[in-house]
Amino acid sequence: MTTTRTSPATSSILPSAFPGSRKAYVDGPSGLRVPVREVVLSPTTGRFAQEENPPVHLYDTSGPYTDPSAVIDVREGLPALRRQWILERADVEEYRGREPQPTDDGVHGGGRANTEVFPGLRRRPLRAKPGGNVTQLHYARRGLVTPEMEFIALREGLSPEFVRTEVAAGRAIIPANVNHPESEPMIIGRNFLVKINANIGNSAVASSIDEEVEKMVWATRWGADTVMDLSTGRNIHTTREWIIRNSPVPIGTVPIYQALEKVGGKVEDLSWEVYRDTLIEQAEQGVDYFTIHAGVLLRYVPLTARRVTGIVSRGGSIMAGWCLAHHQESFLYTHFEEICEIMKAYDIAFSLGDGLRPGCTADANDEAQFAELRTLGELTEIAWRHDVQVMIEGPGHVPMHKIKENMDLQLEVCHEAPFYTLGPLTTDIAPGYDHITSAIGAAMIGWYGTAMLCYVTPKEHLGLPDREDVKEGVITYKIAAHAADLAKGHPTAQAWDDALSKARFEFRWQDQFNLSLDPERAASFHDETLPAGPAKTAHFCSMCGPHFCSMRITQDVREYARAHGVEAEEALPLGMSDKAREFRTAGGSIYRER
Amino acid sequence: MTTTRTSPATSSILPSAFPGSRKAYVDGPSGLRVPVREVVLSPTTGRFAQEENPPVHLYDTSGPYTDPSAVIDVREGLPALRRQWILERADVEEYRGREPQPTDDGVHGGGRANTEVFPGLRRRPLRAKPGGNVTQLHYARRGLVTPEMEFIALREGLSPEFVRTEVAAGRAIIPANVNHPESEPMIIGRNFLVKINANIGNSAVASSIDEEVEKMVWATRWGADTVMDLSTGRNIHTTREWIIRNSPVPIGTVPIYQALEKVGGKVEDLSWEVYRDTLIEQAEQGVDYFTIHAGVLLRYVPLTARRVTGIVSRGGSIMAGWCLAHHQESFLYTHFEEICEIMKAYDIAFSLGDGLRPGCTADANDEAQFAELRTLGELTEIAWRHDVQVMIEGPGHVPMHKIKENMDLQLEVCHEAPFYTLGPLTTDIAPGYDHITSAIGAAMIGWYGTAMLCYVTPKEHLGLPDREDVKEGVITYKIAAHAADLAKGHPTAQAWDDALSKARFEFRWQDQFNLSLDPERAASFHDETLPAGPAKTAHFCSMCGPHFCSMRITQDVREYARAHGVEAEEALPLGMSDKAREFRTAGGSIYRER
Repeated sequence: MTTTRTSPATSSILPSAFPGSRKAYVDGPSGLRVPVREVVLSPTTGRFAQEENPPVHLYDTSGPYTDPSAVIDVREGLPALRRQWILERADVEEYRGREPQPTDDGVHGGGRANTEVFPGLRRRPLRAKPGGNVTQLHYARRGLVTPEMEFIALREGLSPEFVRTEVAAGRAIIPANVNHPESEPMIIGRNFLVKINANIGNSAVASSIDEEVEKMVWATRWGADTVMDLSTGRNIHTTREWIIRNSPVPIGTVPIYQALEKVGGKVEDLSWEVYRDTLIEQAEQGVDYFTIHAGVLLRYVPLTARRVTGIVSRGGSIMAGWCLAHHQESFLYTHFEEICEIMKAYDIAFSLGDGLRPGCTADANDEAQFAELRTLGELTEIAWRHDVQVMIEGPGHVPMHKIKENMDLQLEVCHEAPFYTLGPLTTDIAPGYDHITSAIGAAMIGWYGTAMLCYVTPKEHLGLPDREDVKEGVITYKIAAHAADLAKGHPTAQAWDDALSKARFEFRWQDQFNLSLDPERAASFHDETLPAGPAKTAHFCSMCGPHFCSMRITQDVREYARAHGVEAEEALPLGMSDKAREFRTAGGSIYRER
Repeated sequence: MTTTRTSPATSSILPSAFPGSRKAYVDGPSGLRVPVREVVLSPTTGRFAQEENPPVHLYDTSGPYTDPSAVIDVREGLPALRRQWILERADVEEYRGREPQPTDDGVHGGGRANTEVFPGLRRRPLRAKPGGNVTQLHYARRGLVTPEMEFIALREGLSPEFVRTEVAAGRAIIPANVNHPESEPMIIGRNFLVKINANIGNSAVASSIDEEVEKMVWATRWGADTVMDLSTGRNIHTTREWIIRNSPVPIGTVPIYQALEKVGGKVEDLSWEVYRDTLIEQAEQGVDYFTIHAGVLLRYVPLTARRVTGIVSRGGSIMAGWCLAHHQESFLYTHFEEICEIMKAYDIAFSLGDGLRPGCTADANDEAQFAELRTLGELTEIAWRHDVQVMIEGPGHVPMHKIKENMDLQLEVCHEAPFYTLGPLTTDIAPGYDHITSAIGAAMIGWYGTAMLCYVTPKEHLGLPDREDVKEGVITYKIAAHAADLAKGHPTAQAWDDALSKARFEFRWQDQFNLSLDPERAASFHDETLPAGPAKTAHFCSMCGPHFCSMRITQDVREYARAHGVEAEEALPLGMSDKAREFRTAGGSIYRER
């Protein structure tokens, strides 16, 4: 069977909830149901108080995979949640679609294509009716609040009208290809929760389809809001099909990667025709946003010649290489309006790539980088004239003191289109730990206004991430994003911290674990140095030991206040002995006499 | 043998260099030799250029343990590097010293003490001659440039006079107890490299002496600039003795922990007498700085009653508990001048503890925290009147937008005494990852001016760190500290990044690994997805595969410029074909016509 090779082993994926959490749904208008991770908490007891602790609802990117009642069959794909909404707008048409080619999967020289690309899909692709425009930006500007916007409003705890106005202003995007109805609507904009993206994808030297599907499920389990499939090499079309059909989150790609495969890896053989064909191919599959490095202009390329690390963006260097080989301006730039026409027929968002981003702290904020950023701003204006959604990609490697300039300039020259940054890494000295070097920069730029943070794994610069690296990267970036939400004063962000902190203070260990980003790790770390059973209910931890615990003193303070029938703030001065009173006078003199 | 139990197995510690590095020494005046980690680099070859890459010198905290020619015997301790300098100042005296007590090691009720505390030490303790003052601050204010200052000047690449003036101003401290001559002088101040501290120490429920000595060696190997021994429970005196005798970095402690052990863990039984006895005990052993929570005043305690997590500092809650139990002002506060008298006789620096630091983001920057900070500022003035060195401890848990206020207020009310912060953690939702939640805050506050960052390990809030946790914590904090150095524009910081970035760009993989904070991890991560041998010399990485690599494009750009005999910046416009020229005109019209 020719399809055996490409059939993922992931049909064995079993849904499972987080420990102590259950999949709940918040009901909205018109039958909308927004999934949340509901953490059920135990009551406060004992010395602390007697009170119930209400369940906590956390934003949930994991789709049906954390609903134990869901029936998962990766060969069928996820339910087409948005299909009906899309059809009810009556502005799309089904059509025959492009015929898959052997080269779509990197098969050259007459080899056989994967004819059975995805066994479960029976749909034909959708696109806008001739002359139409099916983007969420288009609807928003016409005053329409779509079900997608209503879903997002419930998800973010904001009004549907606010969602609409932010999209209409271009300050936020809803990546939602009409051919990816399986996705749960989400929004990327700086007045919403900071989002994170996880990159997966095979490459010429490693990985396989089933691993990539499993990585997608795995990444969204831990909190990836979008996933980029950066596959290269063989089976690139088929891998993507499997990923999209099973993905509850928007999928992004860098189409030039596949276009390059189609021409056998020879940069100079790239052309607008091959690229356009790739856009259509991926549009029909349901890719929600395309990274397009249309700002790498021929005249910017020499600006990189004296850099320490030159051009490090793969897409950027492909286009720079093409420009050099042809002595021509990039076809992404010259055909930009045609690209817009494609994007609006499917509602694919631009992620305007930063092909000239710095590859080390020494190259940060240089002329090449900012020249490209200004061009991305010009392209944003063009895309917006087509009502095509846009976000802007940003660096990369930037020392802390140069981060804010990136954000401020992006807001200015890109007219507040959402910023989507890779890190940035704040130092280059720690390969193996670049999830951390970059989480520092990511948290800061998220606070300053970046809407989505592209994760970095511990393998960055060294190799391809495995399963554990993906998890480490996602959780590290959830930390950065949430730290940014807190710093921005997002109303729901602080409540999560407070619920966990209260559980910590009250020695509700299980609640503390269950509320955490990684309940399993928290539980397994606590407490390797104590016996398993008692530790989980102990009113102390191994840092202080059983005889003394600092958490208890506050209880003494509170009980003291209660016992004396006064407010805590006034309790102690009233209760002070004469001797203590005397001391205060004496003690005060330490400062007066000297 | 009664000593068997306390004889560390670490006498088997074998010195070993970092891969690709060797222990080198920078020679200074009067025979001073400052150790550095010298990374030897391979030449640049092939397409990139033909040039030598000079060796890179990195700040080295690891002491003789990374010098393969060193003879290590932990039962003898390290050479007394500073002994001669101390004696030559002719302001100290040897004396008999305090007799070790069974309770020093937590032995109560007539048990036997460890009589053979440290087999290698034959010295009697030193202290200032009567009425004298042996602090580096005292010398600095009198215009004396000590060998310690000269050593530091070489280490930091600054002038000895600059070191002296910073110390004299109180903006920097040199923790250097006259009874810890084994330590290599280092400085903590915001106009120097940002330092990090690693906490080790057994507790009532885990660990042992040999593990703690090994952790100290391990922590300094990866870059800990100071180590705090937070041991509690049994063998606390003996553990500390072994650590100090073998430590190339200053050692800090929280004496109240041991004082509490001496009174059987009963907070209310603490007294000035027991505490004073503990200070002397530890001073004679050579502790370089004491965390003293003298700012926890009785009247501040009620300010914590309504916090989400009350008082979380162990030392702070001990003192708050004592104040409550006695209805008296803290004896640390009332006896502060007597403490200063002890500190100046040995040159022990104050690390004024933040006993009321916030234990969660919700409690950050509250009245209790800042009231205590102001008191620490007053105590700083008192200490300075005694020429005693001071640094100030800071939080803890602070969301990003509230971090800078901490730094600014500390500089103001503590008169620029160095700030020494724990993190801060920027969110509370990630137990198991608090090295990361806190590295974000640590890097930021380091940039803003914090002089030393106390590490947080992945086990924070959950359990005691093991060997791997210590390493993960130290490296994470080296990242934060170095990111801060870069952002502050420290002259030597950027060169390290640039050397590694250049190696990365030129595919000098081994140089990249050897220059990194953790060469072993970098090498082992690269490239698990490629065969071992070729990967280390490959001119590509698995992210892009063998057929294409973005790093090469810049070489094309450079070669293009060279081939055309013009500067790269001008090369491309000159080389453009007519067709390309034509396009640029057409492309420009995209913007004009719309």
